[in-house]
Formats: sequence, structure tokens, C-alpha cells
Amino acid sequence: MQPHFITLEGGEGAGKSTQASLLAASFAKAGIEAVVTREPGGSAGGEAIRSLLVSGDVDRWNARSEALLFMAARYDHVETLIRPALARGAWVISDRFYDSTYVYQGIGKNVSTQWLDDLYTLLYGNFQPSLTLYFDIEPSAGIARATARGNAHEARFEAMDLAFHTRIREGFLSRALEHANRFVVMDAAQDKRIVHDSVRAAIKQKLGITLPSGSEG
Amino acid sequence: MQPHFITLEGGEGAGKSTQASLLAASFAKAGIEAVVTREPGGSAGGEAIRSLLVSGDVDRWNARSEALLFMAARYDHVETLIRPALARGAWVISDRFYDSTYVYQGIGKNVSTQWLDDLYTLLYGNFQPSLTLYFDIEPSAGIARATARGNAHEARFEAMDLAFHTRIREGFLSRALEHANRFVVMDAAQDKRIVHDSVRAAIKQKLGITLPSGSEG
Repeated sequence: MQPHFITLEGGEGAGKSTQASLLAASFAKAGIEAVVTREPGGSAGGEAIRSLLVSGDVDRWNARSEALLFMAARYDHVETLIRPALARGAWVISDRFYDSTYVYQGIGKNVSTQWLDDLYTLLYGNFQPSLTLYFDIEPSAGIARATARGNAHEARFEAMDLAFHTRIREGFLSRALEHANRFVVMDAAQDKRIVHDSVRAAIKQKLGITLPSGSEG
Repeated sequence: MQPHFITLEGGEGAGKSTQASLLAASFAKAGIEAVVTREPGGSAGGEAIRSLLVSGDVDRWNARSEALLFMAARYDHVETLIRPALARGAWVISDRFYDSTYVYQGIGKNVSTQWLDDLYTLLYGNFQPSLTLYFDIEPSAGIARATARGNAHEARFEAMDLAFHTRIREGFLSRALEHANRFVVMDAAQDKRIVHDSVRAAIKQKLGITLPSGSEG
């Protein structure tokens, strides 16, 4: 069976990490190796770069510098973790990938999306996820969830205002439409078990594999 | 008077920092504002990225990831320090710039120089130094100097072997030839005051400005 690269995208509090864990449990039950990872970070180098991105003042980096750091972290992640895992037959599930850079830095912070796409092509050629699950949630509900979760060390991202998060949501929805071949939009406001069922349904429909539920009982 | 961007390049122990200081003293005596900076680093963001590059194991980064980090650090440096300084009329003197990435990662570590140039163009367009001074020294002499200087925190670079440094030297000399319009090769094995005189002569010849000596007495 050919392994696939699946990415999870969404705004704050959309439940991506929870869904990544449930999906990991599904693959484990099915006896299929799946590597669960995240961005920025994932690999040792990527995590070191992540620490520069998630700490410090909101305006520590200009938007293009920030985008470049995300791209540098991603390059390390792709080369040292994602491609080797796929090459040995493991599936890879990443909490965020390039769509986040496109939407947050491109649409959210007005970095030229053509420039971002040119950079992407220079770094990765035509490498793309097979499937991108976008976890859609109304921004105020997502922020409330994220705040309740108390990820204080990533306060830099979550301190951005509601208008910004609304632009991000619109950016993801429009990107999902443009890349409908690999995107599936999930209603992330629902109970996590329902969302997990939808995730498994999307994987079955797009990638032809039936996974058992990863949730307990 | 139009300010210029001058870069200093060279291998380990070539005396770039010493020459940068002497040059800064020359500009100060002449009453011309000159910003002396370095790469990787220079700006706050650039220095944060520098810390990822100069610490850890020699093989912490693959060559392309390393090149990307240098490019990201440089982008922050150019946008937040170099361009604003030139815009307000100050000269900028940088200890290393893109030629180092081209030579160390491109020629030294076999990263495609076409890929590096494409990345450079995407990030900076036709922005280039007006003058690049290459401080040439026989690698074993340079390494002996650098070791005597005792920059233990940058041991990652200096631990690389002599063959590598020889390839770097050849790379710089060949690049100086290809970009003869902006490159001047200095004999860095000479006394620092002699080298400083040659630096001032190169600036006079290439940029038409006569600077007083920056050395004491």
C-alpha cells in the first residue's frame, strides 16, 4: 500500500492536535505505521527554528522574514522527516504545512502569494500533500477554545485579533475551493468523535483506505 | 554623496573583523556615517538565527537547510538594517554577505549554485554590494590565526578540514574573477596596516572616495 502525506489545517482552537492523535490511534489499530508531526517544528532543526517563531514580540519578525523562517523550518522537516518516512512506507500526518504559510503570511499579512508559491516551487518542486483536512470553526469559538487550553507559550499567535482570524478563515476556505482535489473541509465545531468520523470518511473517499475509529469506546 | 554597501569576504583568520574596525575608524575620521555589521547576524532577528547556525553539531543542518537559514537571517538583516541605513545616507560595511553563502554552501557543500542564485533573486532582486573586498590568505595560515584568536563558540565552522578551506579559497577567487566589477582581492597575509591601506586604495579606485587611515599613529 502506497503511503500518503496528510496535512491538517485550521485556525486556533480548531482541534487539529486532538484529531491528529485520534488519527494516529486509528492507524495504530489498523497496524499501519503513521508518523504524526507538526509545523513549525517536527524535526530537530524545525523545532529549533520553531522556538524563534513562537517566542518574543508579535512584531519580532517582518512578515517576509517570518515566512522565510517557516520555509526554512519546513525544508528541514520535509528533508529529514517527511520524505524519509514516506520512502520507508510510513504515512505522515502533519499538524500544519505550507497552506498555513500561504494563508497566515500571504493572505493574513499581505506577503505576495506569488512570491510564496515561487519559493515553495524552488524548495519542493511539485511535492504536495495527498490530502489536506481543513478544520473549520467560527473564529471567536476557536479562540475561546484555544484560550481555555492555555497554551501560554504560543501567546504570540493567539494574541492577534478577531478580524485577523476571520481573514485567515476566509483564506483557508478560499484555498480549499481552489485546491478542491486535495482539500476536504471539516466542521470543527462538532464533538471531537463526530469530527473524527468525518476525518475517516474523508480518508476513505480520497485515499481509498478504511480506518477503524481511534477514539476509546 | 551617495552611500555605498561594502562587503568583506574571506576565510577563517583572514582579518575581516580587524579590517572592518579600521574601516569604521576611517569613516568616523572622515565624518561620514558608516554602519559596521556582520553576517550571519547584524540585526536582532539575524543574530537570533545566527545562534542556530553557529552552535550545535557540525552536521546539525543539511546544506540546503543551512543555506536557507543564512538566507532568512540575511533577509532580516537587509530589510531591517542595511536598506534603512543606506536610505538615510549611511554607508554600510558588512563582514560577510551572500558571496559567503554562495561559496560555503554552494561550492563548499555542493548546494546547487543555480538554486542559490534563484533564491537570491527571489529575495533581493538586483540588490548587490557596490564593492566586495576579498581577504585572501593561505588556509593553513588563516586557520592558525583563527585558532590563536580562540573563538571557541564558533568552533563548528573552524573544525572543518583544510581541504574544505582550500576549496572555499578557490571558490572565492573564482567568484572574484566572475564578478570583477565589484570584487577586489586583498593579500590578507600582510600586516594589518598594509592591508588597511590597500582597502582604502580599493575604495578610492572603485567608489571614488578618499578616506583617512583608521589606524592609530
